[in-house]
Amino acid sequence: MLAENNEAELREFCVTLHPSRTADFMDGLTPGEAWQILKHAERSRASEIFGFFDHDFQKQIIETQDREEIALLIAELSSDDRVDLLSDVDEDIKEDLLKRLPVDERRDIMRLSQYPEGTAGSIMATEFMKLPETLTIGEAIREIGKQSEHVETIYYVYIVDDEGHLRGVVSARQLLAGLRNPLTKLSEIMETALISANAQEDQADVVKKVARMDLLAIPVVDDENHIVGIITHDDVIDVVREEAQDDLVRSAAVEPLEDTYLNTSILTFSYKRGLWLLVLFLGSLMTATALQSYDRHLEAWAWLVPFIPMIISTGGNSGNQSATLIIAALVHGEVTVKDWLRVIVREFIMGILLGFKLGFVGYLIVLFFFPSVPGFPQVLIVPLTLVMVILTGTITGATLPLFFKFLGLDPALMSNPFVAGIVDILGIIIYLTIAGFFLPSPFSS
Amino acid sequence: MLAENNEAELREFCVTLHPSRTADFMDGLTPGEAWQILKHAERSRASEIFGFFDHDFQKQIIETQDREEIALLIAELSSDDRVDLLSDVDEDIKEDLLKRLPVDERRDIMRLSQYPEGTAGSIMATEFMKLPETLTIGEAIREIGKQSEHVETIYYVYIVDDEGHLRGVVSARQLLAGLRNPLTKLSEIMETALISANAQEDQADVVKKVARMDLLAIPVVDDENHIVGIITHDDVIDVVREEAQDDLVRSAAVEPLEDTYLNTSILTFSYKRGLWLLVLFLGSLMTATALQSYDRHLEAWAWLVPFIPMIISTGGNSGNQSATLIIAALVHGEVTVKDWLRVIVREFIMGILLGFKLGFVGYLIVLFFFPSVPGFPQVLIVPLTLVMVILTGTITGATLPLFFKFLGLDPALMSNPFVAGIVDILGIIIYLTIAGFFLPSPFSS
Repeated sequence: MLAENNEAELREFCVTLHPSRTADFMDGLTPGEAWQILKHAERSRASEIFGFFDHDFQKQIIETQDREEIALLIAELSSDDRVDLLSDVDEDIKEDLLKRLPVDERRDIMRLSQYPEGTAGSIMATEFMKLPETLTIGEAIREIGKQSEHVETIYYVYIVDDEGHLRGVVSARQLLAGLRNPLTKLSEIMETALISANAQEDQADVVKKVARMDLLAIPVVDDENHIVGIITHDDVIDVVREEAQDDLVRSAAVEPLEDTYLNTSILTFSYKRGLWLLVLFLGSLMTATALQSYDRHLEAWAWLVPFIPMIISTGGNSGNQSATLIIAALVHGEVTVKDWLRVIVREFIMGILLGFKLGFVGYLIVLFFFPSVPGFPQVLIVPLTLVMVILTGTITGATLPLFFKFLGLDPALMSNPFVAGIVDILGIIIYLTIAGFFLPSPFSS
Repeated sequence: MLAENNEAELREFCVTLHPSRTADFMDGLTPGEAWQILKHAERSRASEIFGFFDHDFQKQIIETQDREEIALLIAELSSDDRVDLLSDVDEDIKEDLLKRLPVDERRDIMRLSQYPEGTAGSIMATEFMKLPETLTIGEAIREIGKQSEHVETIYYVYIVDDEGHLRGVVSARQLLAGLRNPLTKLSEIMETALISANAQEDQADVVKKVARMDLLAIPVVDDENHIVGIITHDDVIDVVREEAQDDLVRSAAVEPLEDTYLNTSILTFSYKRGLWLLVLFLGSLMTATALQSYDRHLEAWAWLVPFIPMIISTGGNSGNQSATLIIAALVHGEVTVKDWLRVIVREFIMGILLGFKLGFVGYLIVLFFFPSVPGFPQVLIVPLTLVMVILTGTITGATLPLFFKFLGLDPALMSNPFVAGIVDILGIIIYLTIAGFFLPSPFSS
């Protein structure tokens, strides 16, 4: 279509499909080609389609296409999206674009840019319906009809007093149901038991509130209770997904990324991964130190060596299972620090159950498949170690995230590799100690 | 308040706060006490507050309180919530309650219960606005005013033809904006570029669609395109959170739970964890077998033993990092199977970078802190192994999830412990092979 420059078809393409579908179909075009197509749509439609492009593709279009036209598009984008986008655009281009924007838009962008990443303010939009409490239902509906194109949602209308303090909320549902009494004042029907967020609040907390209360949008206020923005359901879903991804990545001892996997430079990765890998590596040297003391007496102990990896990996796995279960339960509020005793008792029983299960299997395997292992009672060393190591794993794995939470830290910092690292060292010590009961001590010889 | 049976205050308590707050404040009461308080609220308010209780608390109330009154409450709950709840209630009590419900409600519950867990049908609600395309805007608004109490959302009104086929959608925003032309037909203003979900579709896919397109709600249709329900933004958030928790738990080789951590019985856990733990345990025996062949020649090789845990844990950690990053990127659509070559090249470079970094640190440490290690060239065994093991970790960790995705399986099945287990075995083989170049072979002596 683009090659033929078929105007009618291009316009049709921008209008008939859902904007997100149109955006999907344009995948693979160059920024210039995409921009050519968007010019065939009405400006509001073009900005909708543009909103569904990848963040990077948006950035490329902005940095390469005609500045004057781009400024018109930016004026049309929703306030939260454009702040997000401009923060990644080349500084000179951003300056140039800001100059071309109407003064209201420019101020809005500057104000929103001031909220630090991760706060409610940084994800809120400033296009919301705000009406004085003295209006009637009839007047309010006329007002909504006028403003509806410029706001993110008309489904909640926020009611303010003369100084802009948030007083209440009226839903579009209430307004429609109240159409029979158009002269009723908004102050009479508004809901005053209102949930709001402070602009400086952590976005993760705000999202939890919205999810808990099944809200469509939450108003954001400053310290004096002036309404300054709203966060809508779609932003909430984005944050929930983002936080979940961070939790997952952190569980493998990687610092959460600011960008997508493919857009993160290898050097950034090498830093975000290397640091923790090095810390874990230095920690694991303790196992080497522990084992080294047995070095000179390996004759009687030699048959123990092949089981070392198996023992520490089994301990690490049981520790990871417990830690991840507890972290997931803490994140979702299913478990709180108050439940610590219950959690530890459960994990203790779990450790015993799993330990004896695997210990028994281990006993049979050692007995039948490893002829190098001496007979009774030494044959018990590996199975007993398995029981103890699995138990250590479940208890360590459950305790550490709870302890971190108790200290006010993020329990997800107690990632799998850390738990595994600690259980590794304990596992080696347990193995050597149990072996010491059954074998001549390396120190006594 | 309850002790004094202060009617006015109890009613006040149920009305002034947001229902979720009222529910929060009732935490700690017995089911009987909570039910006493709810009776002071209007039925619709009581059902809202009830909806914010814990699933278990809801179940306890239903199972212990007066059946006739509970049936009235259930009739008031939203269709998706009550199906969810009744599926967990004792079978006899459920039967008894169903008998007491109006026939329409009973049929609705039976129909919704038929959708298997995890499908769009299982999370949809059946209270939605459905209007014929022949209505005018004015008629539609009157109709909404009448029905609005009984539907989940009025913000999308679905337009159907005579046979109930989904034809389009009109938003409340459009209706309010169209109030000036009340005689316009809905068919003229409805949006026909409609996104819908099939009732049998995987809920995770539906949620991705809604999140991608920033929808408030998505209509659910059967195979003949009859609209049968809707899924609203709050259900979407719940599913996103649930799926994220499942991913996290699966990353530690635990089968996702059906219930919360504390409500899952220890025996269920012991099964969900024990199975994978056993599989991993049996896998790790391969490291024991590999090491065993070197048993009889430990004299010259003895100094290598203390480094075994460190080497395999470092390999496992680098593998976990890569696997988790790739899984998170696949889940969020940042990476697709098509990107496999790019991913592997990146992870190869990453492996080399990280490998040399840790290898160098390892070299210095072996040199200065481990006097048992022989001089050059044997001192190179541990550092070289670290480079190779880290590289094996990054490449294995990146390849396995991609390969699982390519096979059409869930990449999250390639959990951390599996990657670590595979890298463990490879690590031992690499260690012994590299050592073989520098030391007299155990087989040649």
